[in-house]
Amino acid sequence: MTTDPIETVGVGMLGYSFMGKAHANAFRTVGYMMWPPPVQPELVVVAGRDESAVAEAARRYGFKAHTTDWHDVVTDPRVDIFDNCGPNFMHAEPTIAAAEAGKHVICEKPLGRDADESFETWRRVEATGVKHLCAFNYRFVPAIRLARELIESGELGEIRHYRARYLQDWITEPDFPMVWRLDREQAGSGALGDLGSHIIDLGHYLVGDIASVTGLTRTFIDDRPGGTVDVDDAFEATVAFEGGAVGTLEATRFARGRKNALSLELNGSNGSVAFDLERPNELQVSVPSLPTSVDGFRTVSVTESEHPFMANWWPPGHVIGWEHTFVHEIHHLLKAIAEDGDVEPHGATFRDGYRAAEVCDAIARSSEADQSVDIRYRSLEVRV
Amino acid sequence: MTTDPIETVGVGMLGYSFMGKAHANAFRTVGYMMWPPPVQPELVVVAGRDESAVAEAARRYGFKAHTTDWHDVVTDPRVDIFDNCGPNFMHAEPTIAAAEAGKHVICEKPLGRDADESFETWRRVEATGVKHLCAFNYRFVPAIRLARELIESGELGEIRHYRARYLQDWITEPDFPMVWRLDREQAGSGALGDLGSHIIDLGHYLVGDIASVTGLTRTFIDDRPGGTVDVDDAFEATVAFEGGAVGTLEATRFARGRKNALSLELNGSNGSVAFDLERPNELQVSVPSLPTSVDGFRTVSVTESEHPFMANWWPPGHVIGWEHTFVHEIHHLLKAIAEDGDVEPHGATFRDGYRAAEVCDAIARSSEADQSVDIRYRSLEVRV
Amino acid sequence: MTTDPIETVGVGMLGYSFMGKAHANAFRTVGYMMWPPPVQPELVVVAGRDESAVAEAARRYGFKAHTTDWHDVVTDPRVDIFDNCGPNFMHAEPTIAAAEAGKHVICEKPLGRDADESFETWRRVEATGVKHLCAFNYRFVPAIRLARELIESGELGEIRHYRARYLQDWITEPDFPMVWRLDREQAGSGALGDLGSHIIDLGHYLVGDIASVTGLTRTFIDDRPGGTVDVDDAFEATVAFEGGAVGTLEATRFARGRKNALSLELNGSNGSVAFDLERPNELQVSVPSLPTSVDGFRTVSVTESEHPFMANWWPPGHVIGWEHTFVHEIHHLLKAIAEDGDVEPHGATFRDGYRAAEVCDAIARSSEADQSVDIRYRSLEVRV
Amino acid sequence: MTTDPIETVGVGMLGYSFMGKAHANAFRTVGYMMWPPPVQPELVVVAGRDESAVAEAARRYGFKAHTTDWHDVVTDPRVDIFDNCGPNFMHAEPTIAAAEAGKHVICEKPLGRDADESFETWRRVEATGVKHLCAFNYRFVPAIRLARELIESGELGEIRHYRARYLQDWITEPDFPMVWRLDREQAGSGALGDLGSHIIDLGHYLVGDIASVTGLTRTFIDDRPGGTVDVDDAFEATVAFEGGAVGTLEATRFARGRKNALSLELNGSNGSVAFDLERPNELQVSVPSLPTSVDGFRTVSVTESEHPFMANWWPPGHVIGWEHTFVHEIHHLLKAIAEDGDVEPHGATFRDGYRAAEVCDAIARSSEADQSVDIRYRSLEVRV
Repeated sequence: MTTDPIETVGVGMLGYSFMGKAHANAFRTVGYMMWPPPVQPELVVVAGRDESAVAEAARRYGFKAHTTDWHDVVTDPRVDIFDNCGPNFMHAEPTIAAAEAGKHVICEKPLGRDADESFETWRRVEATGVKHLCAFNYRFVPAIRLARELIESGELGEIRHYRARYLQDWITEPDFPMVWRLDREQAGSGALGDLGSHIIDLGHYLVGDIASVTGLTRTFIDDRPGGTVDVDDAFEATVAFEGGAVGTLEATRFARGRKNALSLELNGSNGSVAFDLERPNELQVSVPSLPTSVDGFRTVSVTESEHPFMANWWPPGHVIGWEHTFVHEIHHLLKAIAEDGDVEPHGATFRDGYRAAEVCDAIARSSEADQSVDIRYRSLEVRV
Repeated sequence: MTTDPIETVGVGMLGYSFMGKAHANAFRTVGYMMWPPPVQPELVVVAGRDESAVAEAARRYGFKAHTTDWHDVVTDPRVDIFDNCGPNFMHAEPTIAAAEAGKHVICEKPLGRDADESFETWRRVEATGVKHLCAFNYRFVPAIRLARELIESGELGEIRHYRARYLQDWITEPDFPMVWRLDREQAGSGALGDLGSHIIDLGHYLVGDIASVTGLTRTFIDDRPGGTVDVDDAFEATVAFEGGAVGTLEATRFARGRKNALSLELNGSNGSVAFDLERPNELQVSVPSLPTSVDGFRTVSVTESEHPFMANWWPPGHVIGWEHTFVHEIHHLLKAIAEDGDVEPHGATFRDGYRAAEVCDAIARSSEADQSVDIRYRSLEVRV
Repeated sequence: MTTDPIETVGVGMLGYSFMGKAHANAFRTVGYMMWPPPVQPELVVVAGRDESAVAEAARRYGFKAHTTDWHDVVTDPRVDIFDNCGPNFMHAEPTIAAAEAGKHVICEKPLGRDADESFETWRRVEATGVKHLCAFNYRFVPAIRLARELIESGELGEIRHYRARYLQDWITEPDFPMVWRLDREQAGSGALGDLGSHIIDLGHYLVGDIASVTGLTRTFIDDRPGGTVDVDDAFEATVAFEGGAVGTLEATRFARGRKNALSLELNGSNGSVAFDLERPNELQVSVPSLPTSVDGFRTVSVTESEHPFMANWWPPGHVIGWEHTFVHEIHHLLKAIAEDGDVEPHGATFRDGYRAAEVCDAIARSSEADQSVDIRYRSLEVRV
Repeated sequence: MTTDPIETVGVGMLGYSFMGKAHANAFRTVGYMMWPPPVQPELVVVAGRDESAVAEAARRYGFKAHTTDWHDVVTDPRVDIFDNCGPNFMHAEPTIAAAEAGKHVICEKPLGRDADESFETWRRVEATGVKHLCAFNYRFVPAIRLARELIESGELGEIRHYRARYLQDWITEPDFPMVWRLDREQAGSGALGDLGSHIIDLGHYLVGDIASVTGLTRTFIDDRPGGTVDVDDAFEATVAFEGGAVGTLEATRFARGRKNALSLELNGSNGSVAFDLERPNELQVSVPSLPTSVDGFRTVSVTESEHPFMANWWPPGHVIGWEHTFVHEIHHLLKAIAEDGDVEPHGATFRDGYRAAEVCDAIARSSEADQSVDIRYRSLEVRV
C-alpha cells in the first residue's frame, strides 16, 4: 500500500493529432495503471496552430490551457516536461528552446529531418543537463523488451542476423494527396525517417552499433494531387553490425494489404526470436528444448506477470494495445526524472535519435552513390 | 469541433480488483477517447471490504471518496451510475438496492449465481426503470461487432453452426489454492458461469435464442489447499438454436497453455467468421471472392476507421487492447443514459444476463440428468 | 545396404476412384520410399463396375489385370492382400469373402454402415486369422504419431480434454446433387460415419475408451437434385472417456470455407498438443519450458529424422503430403504380414473400425432419444 | 478414357542421394498421377561413385542397371533423358556430354559453380538442340504458379516490391563437420548458390530481369572438423528490377529454428501475395474486396481442382508434399519432349540457370567491392 505523497510534474505539449493523442493518453493513464507512479503528471498546456482545434484538444485531453504559440509552452513555469508531438520540421527549435529553459524533453521520432539537425538537437539539449527521450516507443513493447532480455542473458547466444521491415500501404493509390510527410522540407525523408528509423533504432537496441550499410531508395509516385513528392516511398538496405551480425532493413508505404507491419527476426548462435507488430503481444522464440522432438518456435503470449511491464496490467492472455507502449515509455521517463536516473539503456535518448538519423542518412547516401557506406557515429566528446 | 457543455454523471463502484481496475480505466478513458462523450463520468465513491486497500484504490483511480459499506454508495446522491465489480455473491443485493435508489446499474457477469437469482435481479431492476447493463464486454470487441454486422447484413447467409470455447489454465496445478471462484456459495458455478456465460451470451448476440442443450460438467480436482472445490472445472455442451443452427460450447480452466483463449466460429450458408481473443483485433472471414481461385479465409485487421468503434482510436494496423472493450461498453451505456435510449440490442442488459444464466443452469441440469434440456427463457411479461 | 531378396505380396483392389488412387499410390511408393520394405507389393488385379474405367485404372496404376466382378479378386490365388476401396455398402461382403479366402484385408472407413455390420465384419474376419486393417490413415500422420508418443511417455500428464472437429463444405450449396454418400442405404450415415469416425478413432487412439456421449445430428438440406438426403449433414457431441477426460466432437459438411479441416486438441495435466490437418506437418505442443518466460505453444515442424516416419523422407522442413499417410499405413500392414506381428496398437484393426461405429451409432441414438448414451463396446470373447 | 499407346522415354541419372531420391520418386509417380502422361518414363541406369551403394539405389528405385562411370549413362542408347543430381562440381561436364550425345538434360541447381561455368554449360547444351531444364522446382509449387498467374493476369497491378529469404540452420553448430557444400572447389558458393539461386530464380520468374544488386556475404565459422569453409554461410542483398520493383534477398544456413524457410512477398499496385515453403499449399493473397470492411490477406488453400496442377491430385484441402513439385516439373519436361514444345516460360531452362548464377556472382562481387553491381545478362546471340 502506498500512502506517501506523490509529487507532480507539469506537462506541456506541442501537437495534438495522432501522436499528441497517443502521448496525452499515456500521461493520463500512467499515473494509475503503473501504480504508484514515480511522479504524477499534470497536463498544463498544449500548443497548436489552429486556435479552435487546440482549444478543443485542451478541453478533450484535460490540459489546463492552450496556446497557438509554442514559445508559451517552453517558457511556462508550470511546465516541467516538454513533449514535442509536432511534425518533423517543428522538432528541433522548440525542443532545444524547452531544454534550454530547463524543461525535460520528449521528442517524437525522427528527432530531426537529417543527421545534422538531429545531432545538433542532441548536442544542444545534452548540454543543458535535462532528461531527454526520443519517442521510439517500440522499445517499450513488452515482447521487444523480452527479446532484449533474452539477448542480454545470453539465451540466444551470439547474434548473427537481424532482419527487419516496416510495411504500410497508405499511399499506394495515386490519388492519395500530398501531405507534409511527403515533403522533404517538412519531413526530411519519407519511409526512411518515418518507418526506417524505428527498425534502425531497434537494431541499435537489440544488436548494437552498425558498421556499414548499402541502400536503395525509391519514389514510385512523384506527382500527387496538391504537390510533388520529393521523399522516398520505400527503401531497401543491407546492414552489417560491429558485432558481426548482418541483415536486411526495409520500409515502404506501398505494401498493399500491410497496414502497420513492423516485423523483425533475430537469429543467434543459440536461439532466435521473431516479432510482428500486428500481433504485438506475442513473441516467437526458438531456444533449445527438451525433448528435442518438440523443438520449434514458441508463440509466447507476453502477458504474464513475470513479463516486462505486464504486472501492471491484466491476468495472462489479456492483451494490451499499441497505445500502451507509450504508457511504459512515459513511465520510464518519469522514473528517470524522479530518481535523477538514466534514460538509457532502455529508453531512447536524443543520442539514439541522432544515431538512427545517421544510419538513415547513410542509406540515402549509399543509394545515391551506389556504394556501401560505413557508419561513423559522431559523439559529443569528440566534438568538444 | 465541440464547444457545447458536457454534462457529468457520478459513478459509484463496488470492488476495485481485476474488474474494478478495468472499469475504472474505462471510465477514465471514455471521456476523451470517444470524443465528445455523451456525458462525462466522474468517479465519486468506491466501496470495498478492506479499509486501507479501498482507500488506496480511491486514491489510485481518482474516486473522491471510499467506503467499506456498499450501502453508502447506493444512497449517495452524487452517484448516478452504480457499477458492481464485486464477486458473484455480491451481485444481487447491492445492484437491486442501487436500482431501487434510482441509480443506473452495471453488473459484472454472471449476473447472479444461478438463473433464479439472475432472474430476480433482472425483475426487480427492470421494475425501477433505470438503465441496466450486464458487463458482457466481448460484445464490444470491434471484431465481434463486425461479425454481428456481417450476420445482420445477410453476408453470411443462414447460420448453420456456432462453435465456441473458452479455455484457461490457471488451476491446472493441484496446489493452486482454494479461492472464492471455486466455491459454489460465493461463485454459483465454476467455468460455466465465469467463462461459459460469455460464449453463451455471444451465441445469443450473434445467433439468437437457444432451443436446447446437452451438457457435461467435470471437477477434476476437488481437494485444494484451503478448501474443497464444489463447482465445475470444465463443461462440454452441444447446443441447438431456435433458428436451426447447431454447435458445441465448452469452457475449462484446465487447458494447459491456453491463457484466455476464447475462440468461436460461425458457419453460414454463404460465409463464415472465426475469432480468437488472443488476437482480438483480427477477424477471420470467409465470403465468396472473385476470382474464386483466391478464395480463402481473410485475416481482417479490424482497425480501419470504417470498422466498428475504430474511428475513435488509431490509424489502421495499430491494435487496441483487451481493456478497451470496456471503454466501448461504458460509452454505450453513457449514450443510452444521455439519450434515454435502449441498451439493447448491442449492449447486454440484465435480461441478457438472466438468459445466459438460464442456459448455464440447463447445461448443469443436463449433466446431472444425462438428458437433453429444452431452454425455456422466462419473460417478465409472463410473470406479471 | 540391403542385398537380401525381398519377397513380394500380391494386391487385389476393389475400387479405383479417390481412395483407390490413394491406396494405389501408396502401394507403388512404399517399396522404395521406406526402404527396404518388409515385403514388396505387386499390383495384381483391380475390380470395378465400369469395364472401360476399370481397364483404364488397371493400366494407369499398373495392375496386371482388371475385372468387373469382385469375386475374381477374392479368389485370385496371386492375391495375398485384398484392399477394399469401394463405397460403404460394398465393404462387408467382399471383405469377409476375401478374408475367408485367406487374404489379408484392408478396408476403408467406415468399416460398415453401422455398428452391427461393422461388428459382424470384424467377427467373421477375425475368425479367419488373417491380418486386418481399417484405413484410419490419420493415425499415420507423423504429427499424430508424435502426439501419441508424447502421451505414452507421460509428457502431457493425465489427459483432461479431447476436442476434435472435422469440417468440410462440399455440400453447402443447395444445388449440389444427390450422391451415394448422402444415401443411408449406401453410406449408412453422413458426416458421422465419414468424418466423425476419423475423430472418434483418433480419440480411441490418443485417449482411450469412451464411456458415454451425448449427440445431436442435423440434416440441413433434404431435397437435392437427384434424390432425397436421409443421412446427417452434421453432428455435435460431447464425450466422456473412461479415463476421465471429457470433450466435444463435431463434424459437418456445411462449414463454408473449411475444406478438409480436421483439427484436434488435447489438454493434459502437464501439457497440451493441437493439430490441424490443413497444416499436417505441424504439431502445436505446450510443455513446461525453462525459462518459464518463454513458455508457449511450440510450432513443431514434424519433419526431423528423429520424428516418426520421417527418416524415410527428406531433410528437415521439407513437408510431405496427405497422400503419404497411406504409405506409412501400408508399410505398417506389410510389416505385420512379413513378421506375423500385430497391427495394433498403432494400426487400426477391424476391431477399431467396429468400435468407432459403435460410438457413431451411440451419437445418433443420443440425438434421437435426447439422452446421454453409455458406450458398451462388444467384444468377441463375450460373444463366443 | 485413354486407350492410346503411350510412348516411353528412357531415363539415366547421375546421383542417388537427396536429389536423386526426389527425382526418382517423381519419375515413378508422374506416369500415373498426371494421367495420361505425355510419355512414360523408364528408369534405365543410375551412376554413382560407390559400387555397392549405387547398386542398392538401382534396386531400390527400379533402375534396370547401374554404373560407377557416368560416361556409361551418357552413351547408353536406351537413355533419352539425362538427369544430373550430382554435386555442383559434377554438373557441367556430364551434362554437356549427355546433351552432345543427343540426350535431353535435367540438371540440379545451381547449374554451375559460377556464372562462367553456368554460361558455358548453357551455351554448349543449347547448341545441341536438346531440351534442357534446370531443376528450380519451386516454380512448380502450385501456390507459386498461382502467384505467377495472378501477376500475369494483372490482378496485382504493377509490382513494386519483391522480398525473399531462404533460411536454414543446419550448420549453426560449430562442430558440424566439413562437407562438400562448404567447399568452394566443389560447391562454387555457399548459401548464395544453394539457397539464393532459388529466390533469385523466383524473382526472375515472378518479377523479371534484375537491373542491379548490392550484396554482403558472410562466413561465420571458418574452421570446422575436417576442413576449412571457404564459401559464404549467408548473404544479404538489395535488388532493383528492370521493371521498377525493388526488394531484399537473403539466405543463410545460420537461422536457428528455421529448417527450410523459403518465404517471399510481392507487393503490387493492386494487390500482394506472400508465400512460405513451410506451409507450401497456402498462398496469402491481398486483393481488393467487397465489402471493403472484410478486406485482408486471404489464406488460399491452393488445393482446388481449378488451381494449377491440383486437378491431378486430391479433393480440396488435401495437401500435397514438397516432393511433388518434382512430379510437376518432370511432367512439364516430358510434355515439352513429347510435343517438341518449349520448356519456357514456366520451366527453368539452362538460360535461367545461368541467369541466376549471374546474379549470385554479382552479389558476391558487390560484397567484395562494397559497391552496387549492375546485372549484364549474357545472351547467346551476342556471343555468336
